[in-house]
Amino acid sequence: MAAIHPVLLCGGSGTRLWPLSRKSYPKQFAALLGGESLFQASAKRLSGPIFSAPVVVTADAFRFIAAEQLAEAGIAPAALLIEPEGRDTAAAILAATLHVAAGDPEALLLVAPSDHVIPEAPRFRDAVAAAVPAAQAGRIVTFGIAPDRPETGYGYLELQAPSEAEVAAPLPLVAFVEKPDADRAAAMVAGGRHLWNGGIFLFRADTMVAAAREHAPDLLAAVEAALAGARRDLGFCRLDPVAWAKAPSISIDYAVMEKAGNLSVMPYAGRWSDLGDWASVWRETEDEGAGGNALSGPATAIACEGTLLRAESPGQRVVGLGLTDIVAVAMPDAVLVAHKDRAQDVKAAVAALKAQGARQAETFPRDHRPWGWFESLAMGDRFQVKRIVVHPGAALSLQSHHHRSEHWIVVEGTARVTVGDEVRLVTENQSIYIPLGARHRMENPGKLPMVLIEVQTGPYLGEDDIVRYEDVYARQ
Amino acid sequence: MAAIHPVLLCGGSGTRLWPLSRKSYPKQFAALLGGESLFQASAKRLSGPIFSAPVVVTADAFRFIAAEQLAEAGIAPAALLIEPEGRDTAAAILAATLHVAAGDPEALLLVAPSDHVIPEAPRFRDAVAAAVPAAQAGRIVTFGIAPDRPETGYGYLELQAPSEAEVAAPLPLVAFVEKPDADRAAAMVAGGRHLWNGGIFLFRADTMVAAAREHAPDLLAAVEAALAGARRDLGFCRLDPVAWAKAPSISIDYAVMEKAGNLSVMPYAGRWSDLGDWASVWRETEDEGAGGNALSGPATAIACEGTLLRAESPGQRVVGLGLTDIVAVAMPDAVLVAHKDRAQDVKAAVAALKAQGARQAETFPRDHRPWGWFESLAMGDRFQVKRIVVHPGAALSLQSHHHRSEHWIVVEGTARVTVGDEVRLVTENQSIYIPLGARHRMENPGKLPMVLIEVQTGPYLGEDDIVRYEDVYARQ
Repeated sequence: MAAIHPVLLCGGSGTRLWPLSRKSYPKQFAALLGGESLFQASAKRLSGPIFSAPVVVTADAFRFIAAEQLAEAGIAPAALLIEPEGRDTAAAILAATLHVAAGDPEALLLVAPSDHVIPEAPRFRDAVAAAVPAAQAGRIVTFGIAPDRPETGYGYLELQAPSEAEVAAPLPLVAFVEKPDADRAAAMVAGGRHLWNGGIFLFRADTMVAAAREHAPDLLAAVEAALAGARRDLGFCRLDPVAWAKAPSISIDYAVMEKAGNLSVMPYAGRWSDLGDWASVWRETEDEGAGGNALSGPATAIACEGTLLRAESPGQRVVGLGLTDIVAVAMPDAVLVAHKDRAQDVKAAVAALKAQGARQAETFPRDHRPWGWFESLAMGDRFQVKRIVVHPGAALSLQSHHHRSEHWIVVEGTARVTVGDEVRLVTENQSIYIPLGARHRMENPGKLPMVLIEVQTGPYLGEDDIVRYEDVYARQ
Repeated sequence: MAAIHPVLLCGGSGTRLWPLSRKSYPKQFAALLGGESLFQASAKRLSGPIFSAPVVVTADAFRFIAAEQLAEAGIAPAALLIEPEGRDTAAAILAATLHVAAGDPEALLLVAPSDHVIPEAPRFRDAVAAAVPAAQAGRIVTFGIAPDRPETGYGYLELQAPSEAEVAAPLPLVAFVEKPDADRAAAMVAGGRHLWNGGIFLFRADTMVAAAREHAPDLLAAVEAALAGARRDLGFCRLDPVAWAKAPSISIDYAVMEKAGNLSVMPYAGRWSDLGDWASVWRETEDEGAGGNALSGPATAIACEGTLLRAESPGQRVVGLGLTDIVAVAMPDAVLVAHKDRAQDVKAAVAALKAQGARQAETFPRDHRPWGWFESLAMGDRFQVKRIVVHPGAALSLQSHHHRSEHWIVVEGTARVTVGDEVRLVTENQSIYIPLGARHRMENPGKLPMVLIEVQTGPYLGEDDIVRYEDVYARQ
């Protein structure tokens, strides 16, 4: 059997899992369920004998996070495609399809979101394998999740007859059904002929290209031009922004699937969740033996029921007392407390914060950069304290500041520091002073992460007070 | 009219307002309602023409907090008595009484807890003034609060007849009533003959001494001995611990009031709260126009009712969504989310945290010391970052550490730093290094608070790794 090319879509950002998911660090990269991120779990799920290396489609802002998390998971991607801007799923999927088709027009692709939970990975891979002959025969196979409740937040796929829990091959699709009201959802789930549309597709590259050429020719042309004009940048493939801007912003369902005649459905009866809000996170993690509560981090529930308590920082204790159906998510800079029935309205809360000018609405406390990350520990009128972590072998840009001087104290590992013409090694328990205006650079020449505490002083401490002279990551 | 000596009791510590109130920094010192602490508001309420300087009774652990808060409020105490250990209210009140009696046996004393809220200070002072003739005539006057609800958490004072809202002079007391059940409370409030026992007393020193001699002679003897053996220490009066330990731990109500025959009740119909739990804090601060919610700090309520949302740190946003009758109090190191009906059980939550060994159960993130305060900003395996604030004119002890070296960066003000034999001034944007084992001292010679960032490195970073050579605060 030819290897399947996994395509992971990880360019989107939602707000319904705020404060853990923010515009600057969306939920697919968060460790929502245990030690690895949803993106990492998705990449691992689509690896093994039947898969080749994944094609990842992401946004400019997340490119280093995606690359770093893949490296951490031990997965080398076949390509990292960067969307100049978000244009919904159709353009992203076609870009990956054309990229793979350039090497092998008959290659099989499995497209999947990277922020879903499918705990039984072998079972899911079995379902993928069972769908391969149909895809090789020219069908577009969409995966249908067996519903366990009358959910009104998803679209449904209609079959000709009630399906068995496990089937050996894809079934014909009768129709797509839009998100239903509660009565319709209940009737569909009771009838057994409807499955959730999970947004996971298996197809041959040329099948998809032909379907797009027939049903969305303008879109296909724009994506072809964006890929033709793409440029290589430090291992990333940047799609051409001018061509990309001409691609309509539309989902693959609307652009192609609902018009194509060659669709099949592969039922999947294993556990699945899109983790679309905190209520679904609760559902995936609740402990039925413990009053239906779901706890994460240093959280304590007393006389609570059906409640999600998440302490996202090891230094912050969360205590719930006498709560029923409450969601509480605590981070050092933001805390959400919501009734579970209002979980879908978290995006309204984020909009309210944004209107108030609160940085917590969109910005994550840890700022991820190509070389590592930093976070602000304390802020005064004329000073700021940061923790800075630099990956082994990484380097910050050669830079200077107009309005601040900096004290650096290395607390883990060793830094190679350039100040003016001088280069020296600064190791644990040593410090160095960067005067205002001095050209400086910080590197980690070692094999372990380097951690330093930076104390800035000056009248203006914004991130935009930076003059970059050289940058290995080609930033301006 | 002779001046009244206010006696402020501020040695106690409760857990029902956790996480804001903790053993190391109890609620009377917290700015629960606005900019000043309850203790400061109490001291100001009992100041003005009819009052002399207050006598403050507190615990060893809180002596510098109390002194600092009085100085901040511009109030010079007549005495700061330090209880070697908490022995309930009877011993504390008798110690203050004997202290005042030594100067003037017929002096009037007004004893009040320092953690209650009485917003209408002039009205309360009028009630105190109206009670003076009775006290001068040898009555012990206890203040009775007109109840506005059938509260089961307080004791009641029974009158002979329903009292007017405002009376010109104290009324006879028929009986003390213990905390009632709900039915009894409702009947008492409906009858109009019962007032809440607010724990506020006005009496002549010799009246109280005589009552104690008759009803609690052992207690009086122990307190007399503790005062006789007291020693002066930096402006504090430390009661003798051996004598103090012999004083029974008992409330003034049980020890004296309930046995004395010369009690009167001064009704007070103004607003009053003991802020005994988060539900009562909500009651004092709710905004009836805004759905009965009470917000404090950067908190946002969306579709909430009857809910208390408190963001105690300016850097931490709290969002409530769809909540009814919920209390959420967020601090950087601890978050409480409780149903308002369970507010009385917060102490059980704290007990649970203590059993888990969580430092947040008892320890406040800011550690107050005689010279100022510090807080931990970040903690690693082999490093810790602290923010240290030193009051003008204050000095830390001359000290050394066995297991850590320290980097200090001054970010506000100027420090005078001793390292070994060298003394130098370190000002904003300057740093200094304290090697492991070096004798060192930090002072603030200036007129403004001095702020510095300390980065410690070493294998052991506990507060107990300290050798003190000299300390202006006479600590060991």
